[in-house]
Amino acid sequence: MLKVYLSGEIHTDWRESVKSACKGLKIDWSGPVTDHAASDDCGVEIFGAEPDKFWHDRKGAALNAIRTRRGIEGCDVLVVCFGEKYKQWNAAFDAGYAAALGKPIIVLQPDDHDHALKEVDAAANAVARTPDQVARALRYVLTGTL
Amino acid sequence: MLKVYLSGEIHTDWRESVKSACKGLKIDWSGPVTDHAASDDCGVEIFGAEPDKFWHDRKGAALNAIRTRRGIEGCDVLVVCFGEKYKQWNAAFDAGYAAALGKPIIVLQPDDHDHALKEVDAAANAVARTPDQVARALRYVLTGTL
Amino acid sequence: MLKVYLSGEIHTDWRESVKSACKGLKIDWSGPVTDHAASDDCGVEIFGAEPDKFWHDRKGAALNAIRTRRGIEGCDVLVVCFGEKYKQWNAAFDAGYAAALGKPIIVLQPDDHDHALKEVDAAANAVARTPDQVARALRYVLTGTL
Amino acid sequence: MLKVYLSGEIHTDWRESVKSACKGLKIDWSGPVTDHAASDDCGVEIFGAEPDKFWHDRKGAALNAIRTRRGIEGCDVLVVCFGEKYKQWNAAFDAGYAAALGKPIIVLQPDDHDHALKEVDAAANAVARTPDQVARALRYVLTGTL
Amino acid sequence: MLKVYLSGEIHTDWRESVKSACKGLKIDWSGPVTDHAASDDCGVEIFGAEPDKFWHDRKGAALNAIRTRRGIEGCDVLVVCFGEKYKQWNAAFDAGYAAALGKPIIVLQPDDHDHALKEVDAAANAVARTPDQVARALRYVLTGTL
Amino acid sequence: MLKVYLSGEIHTDWRESVKSACKGLKIDWSGPVTDHAASDDCGVEIFGAEPDKFWHDRKGAALNAIRTRRGIEGCDVLVVCFGEKYKQWNAAFDAGYAAALGKPIIVLQPDDHDHALKEVDAAANAVARTPDQVARALRYVLTGTL
Amino acid sequence: MLKVYLSGEIHTDWRESVKSACKGLKIDWSGPVTDHAASDDCGVEIFGAEPDKFWHDRKGAALNAIRTRRGIEGCDVLVVCFGEKYKQWNAAFDAGYAAALGKPIIVLQPDDHDHALKEVDAAANAVARTPDQVARALRYVLTGTL
Amino acid sequence: MLKVYLSGEIHTDWRESVKSACKGLKIDWSGPVTDHAASDDCGVEIFGAEPDKFWHDRKGAALNAIRTRRGIEGCDVLVVCFGEKYKQWNAAFDAGYAAALGKPIIVLQPDDHDHALKEVDAAANAVARTPDQVARALRYVLTGTL
Repeated sequence: MLKVYLSGEIHTDWRESVKSACKGLKIDWSGPVTDHAASDDCGVEIFGAEPDKFWHDRKGAALNAIRTRRGIEGCDVLVVCFGEKYKQWNAAFDAGYAAALGKPIIVLQPDDHDHALKEVDAAANAVARTPDQVARALRYVLTGTL
Repeated sequence: MLKVYLSGEIHTDWRESVKSACKGLKIDWSGPVTDHAASDDCGVEIFGAEPDKFWHDRKGAALNAIRTRRGIEGCDVLVVCFGEKYKQWNAAFDAGYAAALGKPIIVLQPDDHDHALKEVDAAANAVARTPDQVARALRYVLTGTL
Repeated sequence: MLKVYLSGEIHTDWRESVKSACKGLKIDWSGPVTDHAASDDCGVEIFGAEPDKFWHDRKGAALNAIRTRRGIEGCDVLVVCFGEKYKQWNAAFDAGYAAALGKPIIVLQPDDHDHALKEVDAAANAVARTPDQVARALRYVLTGTL
Repeated sequence: MLKVYLSGEIHTDWRESVKSACKGLKIDWSGPVTDHAASDDCGVEIFGAEPDKFWHDRKGAALNAIRTRRGIEGCDVLVVCFGEKYKQWNAAFDAGYAAALGKPIIVLQPDDHDHALKEVDAAANAVARTPDQVARALRYVLTGTL
Repeated sequence: MLKVYLSGEIHTDWRESVKSACKGLKIDWSGPVTDHAASDDCGVEIFGAEPDKFWHDRKGAALNAIRTRRGIEGCDVLVVCFGEKYKQWNAAFDAGYAAALGKPIIVLQPDDHDHALKEVDAAANAVARTPDQVARALRYVLTGTL
Repeated sequence: MLKVYLSGEIHTDWRESVKSACKGLKIDWSGPVTDHAASDDCGVEIFGAEPDKFWHDRKGAALNAIRTRRGIEGCDVLVVCFGEKYKQWNAAFDAGYAAALGKPIIVLQPDDHDHALKEVDAAANAVARTPDQVARALRYVLTGTL
Repeated sequence: MLKVYLSGEIHTDWRESVKSACKGLKIDWSGPVTDHAASDDCGVEIFGAEPDKFWHDRKGAALNAIRTRRGIEGCDVLVVCFGEKYKQWNAAFDAGYAAALGKPIIVLQPDDHDHALKEVDAAANAVARTPDQVARALRYVLTGTL
Repeated sequence: MLKVYLSGEIHTDWRESVKSACKGLKIDWSGPVTDHAASDDCGVEIFGAEPDKFWHDRKGAALNAIRTRRGIEGCDVLVVCFGEKYKQWNAAFDAGYAAALGKPIIVLQPDDHDHALKEVDAAANAVARTPDQVARALRYVLTGTL
């Protein structure tokens, strides 16, 4: 059983692509909450509204951290996807967090991000360009066959 | 003696502002190489040219990592600055790395980054808006006086 | 499976409220012995009476520590409840212990304790006011839905 | 050189009593900020006011944690004093934090707290009744003479 | 499931007494090889004879260490029994090893060993006089009932 | 269940010999990919060709490291075989990696390698000459019988 | 600077022999309190008498542990001497404690203890027969010359 | 001050070349004993002869390990040199040991070793071809200038 955490980009279906290309493999998937609205508002929804957006965000981010830290700390491999848009600092933060814990990292990124991601890539075991490459890498790691 | 690592943005003089506002305090400063060209090209300059920009970047990033990891692992406080421009994924990566090691973090950021940095901020002990606030916080931590 | 340790107050039924509101979730609950008399007297009951109350207490507390430390060290989340009465130093001790191990913490407290608990709260991922909020937070962490 | 962190009660002069009774010993003292007003307000003083007392307290507590965590993590011995008044949950939190890190602990407490502090005491190497006993213990640990 | 390592004395049936008094509890027992001849000679039996008794012993002790270290590192509680006879330095070594790993320890010893075992006892959660006391303590830790 | 990682030499059938001699034992085996071609080319096969053999090798070695590190970090015992031919630096690297993690090590080596392997052997629990000796050692560790 | 902890036997002058044979080397020595009476009675002398010898011993042993744990945790090498007499379980406990922390160990022992100490010796880097051998080993480790 | 451990090959003067090219830099150098005869015979010279070469080697290797482990565990950077001749398994072992501890690694190797060292290189921050490249890399890490 390989435990894989799928970090980063939540606006495309790359997670589903990776999972479906890994069908049949013994992989235990985890990842952040990918419902954008729930992820943003979970803190105030559960613990009460905040007039200041800064603390609104804080309540949510701190609650989400319970899930994300647990997923990263428990995984065998972190796959982190950087998409075309947005700041995606949480993705880079997750990669740094995983690197400090000695977790193997596979980065999924378009090549126009290569220079900006060079520090992240240097901490990774592989840089993939497509979800299918991620899936083939996971398959190889688990089964030893290409 | 407080060991402070100054991570992130290298295009403004925020490091100098913090240091000069901390004059007289027993602080041992460290940080990445801030000479952009040297930082980008150190790998190929020392170990030989690479025709592929991806490996050119890798050689440099891996060499720089010796310095940055040592600085982060040895620090008492990580200060990480997010500027107005660029992707700055290495800054977020450093913050994640420091968080996983249990290092206290002070983030220096303009407020228009607040939502995008909410996960980083939730892992930090303080969010500052100016170098002077960073300096005052370091002074307070060391001396106990405001 | 989420492993949750329920620390603190043993004079109200908050543990049952949390558990019952989490019915159906894959949660593995642990916690201290909540039978007050057994908890106080276990040491001398098993290993022999002590004329000095100080050592009577020591024998019990050291035996209980086998259970509490194991629970805290093995948990994914520590929920700690501060009630209206008593010193409750063991609750704060548990929170500090969990914080040093990097465990996520949810504090359950009435708002009149807010100032006195500010150091504990600052080490926590969430501050809840009711057992139901605790349950909703655990549900969100596990399922990603509000 | 023995590094000693003096945690807990800030309303009596027990720290001065311990230090003065240890005169001549090679001890490097650390501890929290003991200026009550500065400790309470440091966060908002430096980073800006908060209308909500909860976040006012959070900003201060998180900043103070930089100092207290560093002191506890770097110490050889934690001395923690529980006074006659107040909740003192931060003192118990510090003790739990130190215990999880395997730091030796000396508790200074009046005997009417004995039952309420039994879990803390069971994690400690010694329970002292006076600052002078603390000083004698530190002297013995350092010099081997009574 | 509580994982208990039974260390020390191998010439009486204390292990069987503890286990039989714990019947019905979810305990996963481990311990050293208790066949004295096998334990002494395993190294040379498997890897070839040694003319020098010192290396004969070394080969066996190093092989046995694979089993004992794994047992101690994986346990939730170490029970260590000191009998009436022999040097039993391996028992004290196991206790020190467990203590450094932060494992809870229950010592089983006759009271005439109390002074000689005071350092071991001070690192333990409980000192038992009979296998039945050990069993009652394990039962209490697991079930919370006396 | 004993988790055993079989490191080193991939040109003889020593792994099969050990496994078959351990039939019936509860052992969970892991090890590197032993298909030499797949192991060498996995990186470029999945992530794209490299004109420079150095980076061709790097891509493969970094991907294989996900599997080997996970295997070594998760094992209870590392068995490492040094054959008659080749440099086998990866085998020695694995042994060093395991030693730093405190994993028990059994080395399988012909005696003409004894002097060259003395540092590796000194970090090991046993030095075996045949796969059958390895199997007998694992059997003894698990069952306590010779 | 080599930090060496001298554990074990306190009834002969072996510590002085080792130190004097190491004259001129940069060694920072530490060790337990070797004044037998002070070591036994320090707890009750400082914190008050105990009618029960068991708790009298506990108070002293727990206080001494502050010094011994700090010494062992901070050392580069543990030298532990087993003399001809007494149980010396604290010496074996120290060796186990050091072994679990990965500290190099040199054992000083008469050869009639060899069989009884085989588990301790198997965890050690060297077994010496005289203080002079210990000193020569330390000199070699520091200077590289025999 | 940068702490650098120089591991591996002891038959050429590469260590002196690196050191002399680093003149003026604040570097604290360490490394194994490079006197081949002393390194081989230190164990039996100090602790007594062994008729069996295997144990002769063991005594020496275990003693040398005190020095090498301390050097590696304390260093900021490991430089490991693979020469043209010999098995050099101890060099690869050191690299694996350092990698598991998260130490940055610079490998110095001729390019005909590239394929055989691919696993070691993949764990390293840089691969150098000459001592001068090693020196330039260390200078850059320390000073930030090329």
